[in-house]
Amino acid sequence: MAGAPVPDIVVGRLPLYLRALVQMGDEAKEVTSSQQLGDRLGISSAQIRKDLSQFGEFGKQGTGYNVAFLIGQLKRILKVEKIWDVALVGVGDLGRAVAHYAGFIDRGFRIAALFDSDPAKIGTRVDDLLIEDTGTMVESIRARGLKVAMLAVPARGAQVVAEKLVEAGIQAILCYAPTSINVPANVRVQYIDPVLRMQQMTHYL
Amino acid sequence: MAGAPVPDIVVGRLPLYLRALVQMGDEAKEVTSSQQLGDRLGISSAQIRKDLSQFGEFGKQGTGYNVAFLIGQLKRILKVEKIWDVALVGVGDLGRAVAHYAGFIDRGFRIAALFDSDPAKIGTRVDDLLIEDTGTMVESIRARGLKVAMLAVPARGAQVVAEKLVEAGIQAILCYAPTSINVPANVRVQYIDPVLRMQQMTHYL
Repeated sequence: MAGAPVPDIVVGRLPLYLRALVQMGDEAKEVTSSQQLGDRLGISSAQIRKDLSQFGEFGKQGTGYNVAFLIGQLKRILKVEKIWDVALVGVGDLGRAVAHYAGFIDRGFRIAALFDSDPAKIGTRVDDLLIEDTGTMVESIRARGLKVAMLAVPARGAQVVAEKLVEAGIQAILCYAPTSINVPANVRVQYIDPVLRMQQMTHYL
Repeated sequence: MAGAPVPDIVVGRLPLYLRALVQMGDEAKEVTSSQQLGDRLGISSAQIRKDLSQFGEFGKQGTGYNVAFLIGQLKRILKVEKIWDVALVGVGDLGRAVAHYAGFIDRGFRIAALFDSDPAKIGTRVDDLLIEDTGTMVESIRARGLKVAMLAVPARGAQVVAEKLVEAGIQAILCYAPTSINVPANVRVQYIDPVLRMQQMTHYL
């Protein structure tokens, strides 16, 4: 598409649309509308139509969207029609739960490398995957050409590890550490901190 | 404050400010500025001043913010100066990791009740906490007057459980199930789905 770049907030809603469409597909639904999609997501149909129109023409007036086709298009836009190999740093309780999570592979991601700094863990395995030393992480990530990483180390170690990840060529970091990390502008960071979400709700109680 | 309600997106940034301020406090920093806070968070100082001004006057021109005072004010606004007892539904791998997570208690939340539908789990304990039957969940939550819940059940069961939670008087749900749930407008829902965050980044790679 020519013109201005699509706002981040619009891109941020596309995975939500994809998730709902995949669920519709699992329910053997072949066609849907912006209205039905909006009802599922609590988003207005106008918003959905406007968001999707930024990337092309995916539906026909009056006949709606073909679910499988729109899934394919969204996967292409989000670049998850392929599987991304991901490095996971920090194999404590949280890291281990993340490593075991079965919901990544169907949606574009496979944890392909584990790193920890604890000598008692290095060399052991989680399922089939060897836990490597963070001391040799930069070389290991570079050698495999990984671009995506998850950070599940304690808050105080997060910045140092993030800098190593950037050095290794990582371009997208999902940060589970409850802290903000500073990385160059060309590296994307998203945060998972359940407490932030909870505190956002308690304000209203 | 009189006037229009503060937008959700502003309220959503307050927990981020609180987290950074607590870190500053841990570093024995007594005074800060919107500029320093912004540098830590990658948010403009103007945005931070504007957000905070919606709730009152917390700093003095030229002298900045007293860290401990602002922490207290933000905790009050977010209603986390007290500890919220939380119900956790679903004690699979993910639920167990959530139950073990040590980062809740310092920030306003304590997991106080566990529920699962698996007969093999009901009656067993996670740490000191008994796993109760989801069949008697509504009564149990009501009896304890819990208002906040976390949902860590598989996607397909999430809607049914959410409806029970609402029936039980829950007003805020943190949903770990990778799906959208529909609840009445007076009930708040926030979602934790790491894949949504990852897909949002891969678009840019």
